[in-house]
Amino acid sequence: MSERTERDIIAAIRKMVGSGDSRNLLAGIGDDCAVIRQDPPGDKVWLLTTDALVEAVHFDRAWHSPRLLGRKAAAVNISDIAAMGGRPLFALLSVALPAGLPDAWFDDFLAGFNAVLREHGMLLVGGDTVRSGSAAMFNVTVIGEAEAGLVLYRAGARDGDTVWVSGSLGLAAAGLELCRRGVATDAAEWAELLKAHLDPEVQVAMGRVLAASGLVHAMLDISDGLATDLAHLCTESGVGAEVVAEQLPGTEKLAMAAAFCNMSGLDWMLSGGEDYQLLFTTPVAAAAILPQLVLAQTGRQIHAIGRIRSRHGVVLCSRDQDGGEQRREISYQGFDHFV
Amino acid sequence: MSERTERDIIAAIRKMVGSGDSRNLLAGIGDDCAVIRQDPPGDKVWLLTTDALVEAVHFDRAWHSPRLLGRKAAAVNISDIAAMGGRPLFALLSVALPAGLPDAWFDDFLAGFNAVLREHGMLLVGGDTVRSGSAAMFNVTVIGEAEAGLVLYRAGARDGDTVWVSGSLGLAAAGLELCRRGVATDAAEWAELLKAHLDPEVQVAMGRVLAASGLVHAMLDISDGLATDLAHLCTESGVGAEVVAEQLPGTEKLAMAAAFCNMSGLDWMLSGGEDYQLLFTTPVAAAAILPQLVLAQTGRQIHAIGRIRSRHGVVLCSRDQDGGEQRREISYQGFDHFV
Repeated sequence: MSERTERDIIAAIRKMVGSGDSRNLLAGIGDDCAVIRQDPPGDKVWLLTTDALVEAVHFDRAWHSPRLLGRKAAAVNISDIAAMGGRPLFALLSVALPAGLPDAWFDDFLAGFNAVLREHGMLLVGGDTVRSGSAAMFNVTVIGEAEAGLVLYRAGARDGDTVWVSGSLGLAAAGLELCRRGVATDAAEWAELLKAHLDPEVQVAMGRVLAASGLVHAMLDISDGLATDLAHLCTESGVGAEVVAEQLPGTEKLAMAAAFCNMSGLDWMLSGGEDYQLLFTTPVAAAAILPQLVLAQTGRQIHAIGRIRSRHGVVLCSRDQDGGEQRREISYQGFDHFV
Repeated sequence: MSERTERDIIAAIRKMVGSGDSRNLLAGIGDDCAVIRQDPPGDKVWLLTTDALVEAVHFDRAWHSPRLLGRKAAAVNISDIAAMGGRPLFALLSVALPAGLPDAWFDDFLAGFNAVLREHGMLLVGGDTVRSGSAAMFNVTVIGEAEAGLVLYRAGARDGDTVWVSGSLGLAAAGLELCRRGVATDAAEWAELLKAHLDPEVQVAMGRVLAASGLVHAMLDISDGLATDLAHLCTESGVGAEVVAEQLPGTEKLAMAAAFCNMSGLDWMLSGGEDYQLLFTTPVAAAAILPQLVLAQTGRQIHAIGRIRSRHGVVLCSRDQDGGEQRREISYQGFDHFV
């Protein structure tokens, strides 16, 4: 498979599957969740999403405690429900465990997984437990619901829309790099970055507020990095985008970690992946009310980072030292599990 | 984990999770599917099930062609929907692929998977594609529906009920043994047994007829072998069972394969696993009408194999050479992925 990216594979699957009998299917492959109408149609729709976590690819037991890994396994799937503006309800968990794994490790994983479910009022309703050869693997399916008229899709962004993110970018990538370099996972100095990688927060409340506002045209969550996920949103919407480097929201700790690691904080923000912030577009006029609305209802700031354009591709704009504008194509330059 | 069986793990999970906010949850961990009420409640309920297939544990690429493995990955999950009397609608597919796997292998897997979905009028609506270290792994989630009043659970069997199976037992175990011994997978002589292992049929139509009959008290599908799955049904129903060795439905080819391999056809029928036949109980009086009803609507025979008893445990009854009765406890002596 070495020649194919994850995107190639998904495109091939979409082509083969077609739209089929789409009577009650409102969205299928290509969005954060499948969206299914109730039968007969009701006020609510069902949201379905599934994700796999593979040891040595998605996590490293050397620094990821089982409790936090269990929390993350739940969180990254709940994030896909948040990305549609939905409310998570139920989870299914498949676990493949190697023979050498201690019982206590899995018990702690499960305690962390279940704790996040409880925080969101969710329930584990089924699963599968199997043996694996050497690597532990988890697959989580989450079922949620949303108001039929308020679901937010990747498609829907329009020329001229403002592009927003729900919080800081690049923190998880910085945290991962610190773990790789052997920084203690309880190092207080780096707590913000380590938590972003080990125990990410999901933006369910933010997603609900954004969906209810009626102001959002398109939305997804940032799992593969801004450069890739904004390209997804643009492709599904048939548009392009410009983002402004100076407007990307980092943090002081991110800049400190970049200096410490001698790496680029900007690269982490664009390509790092696993931010689990929401990325969304609105009409320009929304800027006058949406930040205040979100702040009042969630206590969080949102950040305008650019603009949707009719011309395809995602372009990063920045100022050079002389004040001239630099433009760089960054479409799909985020994290790909297949490359 | 070496001390724990899959059953121990599931019991621990059930205990930890509790029943939670079960407002719209009609069945959770411990049945073939989770059963969820529509909100607001309607005539139909949703069914959810998930299963993992791990290379070297659940399948061997040496003899399992990718197309048939794709078919089986879909079928074994659809079987859980059939086990509740439901109709499968949608599937989610997570794939973890090792770097060395040729593109064509996965394309063929997907073609087989999708073919079974089409045969059942289903649609692939989402999934995840990730890299794995060395073993290929697949996780399938299937969503189905059933009429709210007609769902069949594992619990519900009553003292005196007749125990039935929907078809022959042990064929998949015999087919697996033949593959292990290097028999060609297109050997016409063993086609029935090889197909049972490589490309099992699922009993959706049978499950629909049984659910609609109103005569069935409890049902599940046989994935871990009769001895284990009947014990599951009995435990959930708070009863026990006796099965009669001479009434277990094998086939002529099964007996031939047992002789060829110098193994026990009876052991395959009791413990082999992966039969994907339906196992169900009815009041005694149903025997006068149910076999004819099923034959008329599906063209298939069902087989009475024993009786539900109030005393716990599953007992195998057989006649010895002198006509005396032998009784042997067989609870949970089927296949366990964790032992």
